[in-house]
Amino acid sequence: MRLLVVNVNTTESMTQTIGARAAAAAATGTEIVPLTPAFGAESVEGNYESHLAAIAVMEAVRAYQGPYDAVIQAGYGEHGREGLQELLDVPVVDITEAAASTAQFLGRSYSVVTTLDRAVPLIEDRLALAGLAARCASVRASGLAVLDLERDPAAAVEAITEEAVRAVEQDRAEVVCLGCGGMSGLAERVVARTGVPVVDGVAAAVTVAESLVRLGLTTSKVRTYAPPRPKQFRSWPPPVAAAVTGAGTS
Amino acid sequence: MRLLVVNVNTTESMTQTIGARAAAAAATGTEIVPLTPAFGAESVEGNYESHLAAIAVMEAVRAYQGPYDAVIQAGYGEHGREGLQELLDVPVVDITEAAASTAQFLGRSYSVVTTLDRAVPLIEDRLALAGLAARCASVRASGLAVLDLERDPAAAVEAITEEAVRAVEQDRAEVVCLGCGGMSGLAERVVARTGVPVVDGVAAAVTVAESLVRLGLTTSKVRTYAPPRPKQFRSWPPPVAAAVTGAGTS
Amino acid sequence: MRLLVVNVNTTESMTQTIGARAAAAAATGTEIVPLTPAFGAESVEGNYESHLAAIAVMEAVRAYQGPYDAVIQAGYGEHGREGLQELLDVPVVDITEAAASTAQFLGRSYSVVTTLDRAVPLIEDRLALAGLAARCASVRASGLAVLDLERDPAAAVEAITEEAVRAVEQDRAEVVCLGCGGMSGLAERVVARTGVPVVDGVAAAVTVAESLVRLGLTTSKVRTYAPPRPKQFRSWPPPVAAAVTGAGTS
Amino acid sequence: MRLLVVNVNTTESMTQTIGARAAAAAATGTEIVPLTPAFGAESVEGNYESHLAAIAVMEAVRAYQGPYDAVIQAGYGEHGREGLQELLDVPVVDITEAAASTAQFLGRSYSVVTTLDRAVPLIEDRLALAGLAARCASVRASGLAVLDLERDPAAAVEAITEEAVRAVEQDRAEVVCLGCGGMSGLAERVVARTGVPVVDGVAAAVTVAESLVRLGLTTSKVRTYAPPRPKQFRSWPPPVAAAVTGAGTS
Amino acid sequence: MRLLVVNVNTTESMTQTIGARAAAAAATGTEIVPLTPAFGAESVEGNYESHLAAIAVMEAVRAYQGPYDAVIQAGYGEHGREGLQELLDVPVVDITEAAASTAQFLGRSYSVVTTLDRAVPLIEDRLALAGLAARCASVRASGLAVLDLERDPAAAVEAITEEAVRAVEQDRAEVVCLGCGGMSGLAERVVARTGVPVVDGVAAAVTVAESLVRLGLTTSKVRTYAPPRPKQFRSWPPPVAAAVTGAGTS
Amino acid sequence: MRLLVVNVNTTESMTQTIGARAAAAAATGTEIVPLTPAFGAESVEGNYESHLAAIAVMEAVRAYQGPYDAVIQAGYGEHGREGLQELLDVPVVDITEAAASTAQFLGRSYSVVTTLDRAVPLIEDRLALAGLAARCASVRASGLAVLDLERDPAAAVEAITEEAVRAVEQDRAEVVCLGCGGMSGLAERVVARTGVPVVDGVAAAVTVAESLVRLGLTTSKVRTYAPPRPKQFRSWPPPVAAAVTGAGTS
Repeated sequence: MRLLVVNVNTTESMTQTIGARAAAAAATGTEIVPLTPAFGAESVEGNYESHLAAIAVMEAVRAYQGPYDAVIQAGYGEHGREGLQELLDVPVVDITEAAASTAQFLGRSYSVVTTLDRAVPLIEDRLALAGLAARCASVRASGLAVLDLERDPAAAVEAITEEAVRAVEQDRAEVVCLGCGGMSGLAERVVARTGVPVVDGVAAAVTVAESLVRLGLTTSKVRTYAPPRPKQFRSWPPPVAAAVTGAGTS
Repeated sequence: MRLLVVNVNTTESMTQTIGARAAAAAATGTEIVPLTPAFGAESVEGNYESHLAAIAVMEAVRAYQGPYDAVIQAGYGEHGREGLQELLDVPVVDITEAAASTAQFLGRSYSVVTTLDRAVPLIEDRLALAGLAARCASVRASGLAVLDLERDPAAAVEAITEEAVRAVEQDRAEVVCLGCGGMSGLAERVVARTGVPVVDGVAAAVTVAESLVRLGLTTSKVRTYAPPRPKQFRSWPPPVAAAVTGAGTS
Repeated sequence: MRLLVVNVNTTESMTQTIGARAAAAAATGTEIVPLTPAFGAESVEGNYESHLAAIAVMEAVRAYQGPYDAVIQAGYGEHGREGLQELLDVPVVDITEAAASTAQFLGRSYSVVTTLDRAVPLIEDRLALAGLAARCASVRASGLAVLDLERDPAAAVEAITEEAVRAVEQDRAEVVCLGCGGMSGLAERVVARTGVPVVDGVAAAVTVAESLVRLGLTTSKVRTYAPPRPKQFRSWPPPVAAAVTGAGTS
Repeated sequence: MRLLVVNVNTTESMTQTIGARAAAAAATGTEIVPLTPAFGAESVEGNYESHLAAIAVMEAVRAYQGPYDAVIQAGYGEHGREGLQELLDVPVVDITEAAASTAQFLGRSYSVVTTLDRAVPLIEDRLALAGLAARCASVRASGLAVLDLERDPAAAVEAITEEAVRAVEQDRAEVVCLGCGGMSGLAERVVARTGVPVVDGVAAAVTVAESLVRLGLTTSKVRTYAPPRPKQFRSWPPPVAAAVTGAGTS
Repeated sequence: MRLLVVNVNTTESMTQTIGARAAAAAATGTEIVPLTPAFGAESVEGNYESHLAAIAVMEAVRAYQGPYDAVIQAGYGEHGREGLQELLDVPVVDITEAAASTAQFLGRSYSVVTTLDRAVPLIEDRLALAGLAARCASVRASGLAVLDLERDPAAAVEAITEEAVRAVEQDRAEVVCLGCGGMSGLAERVVARTGVPVVDGVAAAVTVAESLVRLGLTTSKVRTYAPPRPKQFRSWPPPVAAAVTGAGTS
Repeated sequence: MRLLVVNVNTTESMTQTIGARAAAAAATGTEIVPLTPAFGAESVEGNYESHLAAIAVMEAVRAYQGPYDAVIQAGYGEHGREGLQELLDVPVVDITEAAASTAQFLGRSYSVVTTLDRAVPLIEDRLALAGLAARCASVRASGLAVLDLERDPAAAVEAITEEAVRAVEQDRAEVVCLGCGGMSGLAERVVARTGVPVVDGVAAAVTVAESLVRLGLTTSKVRTYAPPRPKQFRSWPPPVAAAVTGAGTS
């Protein structure tokens, strides 16, 4: 089977990292196709960028030529999964939800540890809307931005590990979901320090998507995720030329 | 003061209707500026179109030249208010939330009555995230689409009124919020049939926005709605030419 | 329009302070009429006194001669709003609820900071019953009584400000509602120290009441707030002479 | 031990009925002292009358001469229990809460069946604040007023029984609490028709009060129910003469 | 009346302690019959042992010869009460639930303090399923095991008392339920240090059971607790010989 | 990998059916080992039988010789999963939870449809404790017992299908989980009548267990599911002879 794994930001190197993680978790015979949106922010760290990513991800999937069996939205706490479910007939899996859902099989409660404090509300909202908040002990942030991670990876790993320890000791989490991209050695460090299972959202989403496909299950179309009704759209989608040549802005 | 009232779809006539309702509710000295997004769907009836509207509304506000004191997002149950709050320093008011918040001062519980069944989950989610669900007795839909409204307005008014009656009698609503655009005579008909106060979201949002401005209050910037961090965007916003000349699609 | 702003205790000087705050928030053309109950406690700091205030406020409104457009109950976390809604045809606004409702438009969560610890449960109950608890991050108290405020205002301001800082930093509040009467400079100090919007309940209630009146909306009478049924009352209301000459007790 | 059982309305015959029910449930050695408030409504059917009853009950207890071991507030869904707890050192038991608490030992969920529809919100609020709502399947009303009960008792019993049947069959209640005063044969009829245990609030409250007294437990005074702080009250309590001679009003 | 008080573990001395506590709380004329399960763990400290205790308690009750009026399951946070309710026609009272239910009459919120940290989730689940979690401020553990209690009783009492103090000061509990067996002087010490009422589950359960019996109320049989349907069981119950001679295992 | 799939009742033919369903869902290379408990009820339809099944399942797993990678508890709404998690180092998956968790990826809400009405509370409790209740629209029962299914399979399929239709139309479920064993053609019939995805718990559990094993994740041992502490057990487990020769009872 073929799974599209769509990054939410426009940074190709992150797409490659995500793709590699997905491939490592995939079963034999599963092909992972990583996609990068044609427009949007280089990193998604807030509501504006997340709303933009929502449609950028949808356009990236629509632009993909060729068949696929499921789509994974590979952003933590981002908007847009519902829209993808309307557009597509195949299963759509959000990594935030896949991680939480997987964590719930491993312990009585779980925490999410992420980087920026401002991502916390987005993740909390995502979990609440998905019906996965009841066993969420906390969503914690290290306070570091993505760029900080690159400047001093060792310090970043340590800061996130510290929050994971607090989640286990203070919030009584029994599982930790990592809500931030693949810093090398992070999961191992958190396991070593906390002694609890650590769930990676991309890997979890791959197994969820594979399972849905194998069981022959896909999105219910009776109400919330029914296909969009036929209608006129003005100036959308943007012409390919615009998408390709538009200048970046800050 | 000047309030931007932004329609979520691209239908100019609906923008005018919304603008007129807003102006009717505005205090002396309040200027209402209705805006129509430059791209998006002719009507917003689902998640995909709503996600698209989210950024279209943001771009419409960004494109507006000149000062303003607050922004009203005039779509029922739509995405995007959080992103606008990040981008702007002035208050942002969503009509779904303004209607519910107003209704709570009038009765112990309220219902929302809208047109399409598929809008119900979006409205429910919006209310839940805004912390306004506890006193929501129900969100009900008449099952009619916007186009149905135009084809047989009298029947549409009757269908919605019937749902309002059910909300009051079966769900024990004490106030009704109308989650659909200005059909003439609708509110009067619902009041006459149910005997409960009927809240119009646009009118409510105008008074909320005016109040916030007069009290000198605006969006908290300490966490969730902090301004976007400086960063590179690829191919966004779309060039003006694309926005102006892009062909509609169905 | 004319708004009755009813103090919950019998201290005239507090009525005047409340009236002045209300007048400062009122729109041009709004007349503020401050009222003091004819009986009850000099300050309301607990359930017994609050239950007493509930009916004292109702009697004060009933005793008022002349027309009015809405009533504001100006006590934080007090009983009685529901009874007033039964008795009156005009809108009734509680300042606890108006503050919370306003705060929800400004940030993802809010905290209330008050003086006495024993007021916390009353405020929490009020918010829960009003359906405004979901986005309440905390209700915090400085531990100081009203009299302490008068003895050392600077220390009182500082103590309350400290709690506001804890609400923002520890409870993740993004807005602060001040649940205690007009200490000069308090709001400014809290804004300066926390950087979050600060909502004053009396000012918020004035704008809510004005909005309801302008929109032509008033309390739903179909169930919870239907007028009292005709019936005999024994020894109530107390004769005017008693109310005027009754001796204070401790 | 001696238990004060305080009616919430001023109708002596109802006080006697309540007293008889309490005495029937009391253990050997328990003395039941029924009390009628000196002022208030002849029946309590709404918030205004309930707020008034709250203080009337408190004054009735304060006026009682002689020792007692606990107090039962014998009104369904009424305000005021919290105030009594502040004033007294002995346990205070509300019949609404005693019935629900007892019901929870008998089945997985319970319903309350009462007379007037407008009592439903008061009962729901009382249960919510007491932390007893999670297993409440419904609060249902027959739509009959107290006076209807007297005019046609057989029809009233039948109407209430019908609601009890609906509670069991439609709401899946496994226990029924009767939220209305002693109609002869009502409990037997409901048991016969529904097959579920029927809890009488007054009887339940007597056993709860006796248990608390025997276990040597009384109200916690550390925070919410601490005694009122010393302070001045204006014109309260009303002079005895006023309470005795005040004319009834409608 | 006769109450069976069933220990959940196989340690006879604990059965005797529990029986003594029950007898001390019982009314004149109530006979307490303490029972020890014929199989199971010497102490119950986790889910496996608790599931085992669930059926051991049921078998102990089934093996009891002679009449009885109610059954008390005397384990804190254990499984099995629902099964007993199916098997029996008389009331069944769990001490965890009796303590919480009693505590709710005494203060606005309560905490449970127990010994082992791993008991916390079981107690929380028990309270949640019983509909008693809304006013539960916290479930806290001292971290000591039962054996620790015996090795250094004074230290154990002190450790538990410390947690009770934290419950009152940090979690705002107004009542404490002791979720651990009879250490001498524990309740007195907690009362002395915290100033809040302390509820013993066994004593509370005795008064609840007595009350239900006296009111003529027993378990609803319409749905959840209907008797087991007639059917074949394989190899159960275990033959008496096996129960008597089976060797202990670790 | 090898998965133990443990039936909760003692009927071998049902074990075989469950095993076949599991095998059909398993990936290439996954070996399914169906197990039948050595004691317990021929069908599990209530709390008593479910408590008994809890330990029978644990003993069946303990008695299994040879390695395995995960365990599936194949009973809908049964007790015991937590105990298994304590005893084992490999993942444990309950089919009730696996079905719900899978359903949440497919639609905004799901319903469970089962046979006996008395199973409804057990399933609701299981979902609540697992944190999977927020998106559960309803748990519905056809009112038929397992034996009814065998007597008239066509009628049974129709009765269950009718409830599924009600779940979709009245409760707004978008996915249906079948909480009852393999009636031939049931899933197909429900899909045909409702148009929504239908999730089989056994199949879902197989894919969840495979995913956990492949991701190298297993039960957190830091608190709730820590191994039982070393201690003496009396008369447990029952001697093999007793398990083999014990006579059935009704």
